[in-house]
Amino acid sequence: MIKDLDVKMEKRNVDSIIVFGDSTVGNPDLRYVAGTSLPRGGIFLKRRSNDPTLIVSNIDVGSARQGKVHNIRTYSDYGFERIASKYDRDEARIRFYQKIMKEEGLHGPTILAGRNEVSNTLHMIDALRRKGVKIIGEKSPTIIEAARETKDRWEIERLRVLGKKTIRVVEDTLRFLRGARVDGKRVSYKSKPLRVGTVKKVIGRSLSEQNLVAPEDTIFAPGRRSSDPHYRGEDEDIVRAGEPIVFDIFPSEPDGYWHDLTRTYLFGSAPKKVKEMYDAVLEVQASALDMVKEQVPCKEMMANACKIFERKGYPTARQLVKGNKEARTRGFMHGLGHGVGLTIGERPYLSLYGKDHLRKGSVVTIEPGLYEPRWGGVRIEDIVVVGSPSENITPLSKDIEL
Amino acid sequence: MIKDLDVKMEKRNVDSIIVFGDSTVGNPDLRYVAGTSLPRGGIFLKRRSNDPTLIVSNIDVGSARQGKVHNIRTYSDYGFERIASKYDRDEARIRFYQKIMKEEGLHGPTILAGRNEVSNTLHMIDALRRKGVKIIGEKSPTIIEAARETKDRWEIERLRVLGKKTIRVVEDTLRFLRGARVDGKRVSYKSKPLRVGTVKKVIGRSLSEQNLVAPEDTIFAPGRRSSDPHYRGEDEDIVRAGEPIVFDIFPSEPDGYWHDLTRTYLFGSAPKKVKEMYDAVLEVQASALDMVKEQVPCKEMMANACKIFERKGYPTARQLVKGNKEARTRGFMHGLGHGVGLTIGERPYLSLYGKDHLRKGSVVTIEPGLYEPRWGGVRIEDIVVVGSPSENITPLSKDIEL
Repeated sequence: MIKDLDVKMEKRNVDSIIVFGDSTVGNPDLRYVAGTSLPRGGIFLKRRSNDPTLIVSNIDVGSARQGKVHNIRTYSDYGFERIASKYDRDEARIRFYQKIMKEEGLHGPTILAGRNEVSNTLHMIDALRRKGVKIIGEKSPTIIEAARETKDRWEIERLRVLGKKTIRVVEDTLRFLRGARVDGKRVSYKSKPLRVGTVKKVIGRSLSEQNLVAPEDTIFAPGRRSSDPHYRGEDEDIVRAGEPIVFDIFPSEPDGYWHDLTRTYLFGSAPKKVKEMYDAVLEVQASALDMVKEQVPCKEMMANACKIFERKGYPTARQLVKGNKEARTRGFMHGLGHGVGLTIGERPYLSLYGKDHLRKGSVVTIEPGLYEPRWGGVRIEDIVVVGSPSENITPLSKDIEL
Repeated sequence: MIKDLDVKMEKRNVDSIIVFGDSTVGNPDLRYVAGTSLPRGGIFLKRRSNDPTLIVSNIDVGSARQGKVHNIRTYSDYGFERIASKYDRDEARIRFYQKIMKEEGLHGPTILAGRNEVSNTLHMIDALRRKGVKIIGEKSPTIIEAARETKDRWEIERLRVLGKKTIRVVEDTLRFLRGARVDGKRVSYKSKPLRVGTVKKVIGRSLSEQNLVAPEDTIFAPGRRSSDPHYRGEDEDIVRAGEPIVFDIFPSEPDGYWHDLTRTYLFGSAPKKVKEMYDAVLEVQASALDMVKEQVPCKEMMANACKIFERKGYPTARQLVKGNKEARTRGFMHGLGHGVGLTIGERPYLSLYGKDHLRKGSVVTIEPGLYEPRWGGVRIEDIVVVGSPSENITPLSKDIEL
């Protein structure tokens, strides 16, 4: 949580933090510390045990004021225009950072954070280091990453809202799908074969009704190709009865919090093999959901999921390590889950190598899946807030048959 | 253009380039060199004068093959699982990078690029440097930034398509707006005052019809508050006749190319002051559009725009430098334009300090604006492809009155 920054800085012997970026979009650390969306980004400065300062351009003061930092200043306040008119872009930036660090009293071991272009940023870091600024790199998790890992009450409330809105989008889509006509293997809508493009338009309309965006698209993958867990479904793909459809939707508020929800659906009745896969995935998910408690090691959750799948004869990702290459193309090929917040994939990771424990306020997906190139994929995903008790914020039914 | 990488590497004495990231979304450099969307990102490696290699996870091979790199490999091919099971996340990454660099024969001055979390990346860079890897920072523009600055034929064609789709969204919105009822200052839709939220739903639906996303929202800012150039309009805001509405729409394909289009509209007839502002902006834009030619210095374009505005008595951003603080809140407060491609703001910048020249294949916005806290804002924006002749890819009419 953001209120933990000082404690974490002290523990790690960090005196100053600077988070910067040219937009909060795509820069979740900056979005997090600013507590609002900044179209042109800004610079967040914090000395340990002091209130932070947020520097933005003149035209973004209004946006900045909607955030959580009280002390808002502008580039002009530090004479940016004069510096920029004298030096080239890189040199101006280096001098500007020196100036604001001096005026704000930042010193000692300093962290430079934010998601930024690495190569040009390194040029600035090397220059600042030559001038005596002590910029240090951080092992993972960084201080801000660690703060972001547990959500405060305000964030959890936002995530709940996102969950509800996302469920509404799936329900709208289901209503549309159930209006299609099924005749043998053929699924038709307005007398034509139902195509993915048509469904995605319904999804898109519903997203916009909910004021959600889906910058990374939506997966609506019917048939065999859904055995690639990231195949998104092409507009021309035809939906057929008896074949699984992986419907994985991950929308966000514009420059805000995310949700992540997967269901697998099927027109007509499920073939035996697909039903077996589906039941296995459902069982693993139920078992994993039961395990979600504070202090549980993330990799134990992953190991438990692998164990159940393996007992049923499905290959899993952990067998890859032992040289069994089957799980490259079939079985349980990915991690069990991941954190969700201002990004769609963050700590904690419920993976083979995840060293984390679940903590109060962590928000994670639980998304086991099975993939088989001959039939396609099956995946079911909910989001859970870790606590006592934990809370599933994706309360949507799980029937494969439409 | 991407085909210029080798020449640029030679000119700058760079032997190797590595571009990495955990997703191509929000990582335009990686998206650019991969030539496709990679949901889980990857590592792009290139030795000078050699074909590049793209390393992705097993489940992203399908996505990677849709891109422009022929040599696709997986983390498993380099034994990632074994390394990850032995070391912690950071140490595993450092060792993995050493291993792939060795196997791919990367050496000499090496650039590490991509948009990534700075603090943890710095930790890796420091560790690799200690092991003798010669990672160098780059002044702006970086090699990849410079390559991205001029678009090849394929990219320009995509950008044209984006322009057409964006215009369709604006036209859909105009059709909706023209259906509203105007009575004095009151604008109503279905017998209720027209609110921004209603208009944004129309825009959202139309975007999804065009398979576009707007991850950074859309500006539909009516009335005085449009005098903040980045005020987006809140759902509850009421649209009134006689007040300017800044409609700035910047959609993209999911994880792809962008467009950026602004028009200013007004119900009823324009008050004199607003009309004067509008005509001034239109004149400046026409003058700027005329200037768009290869080799024109970007800051000359900005200076020309300021000159015309100042002659008409409006404060401009360049007066800020001279200590006139008026342009912090009114007048022409921002740059004249910027490049557009895989991001909504990239080189070249048509700003006071832009050192660039326009080059064949550059794609830039031309977006003068005037802002006045008492009345609101006026901005008009098109996108132009620089060439002989240059091409305006936003052919949409410019009438302020609806």
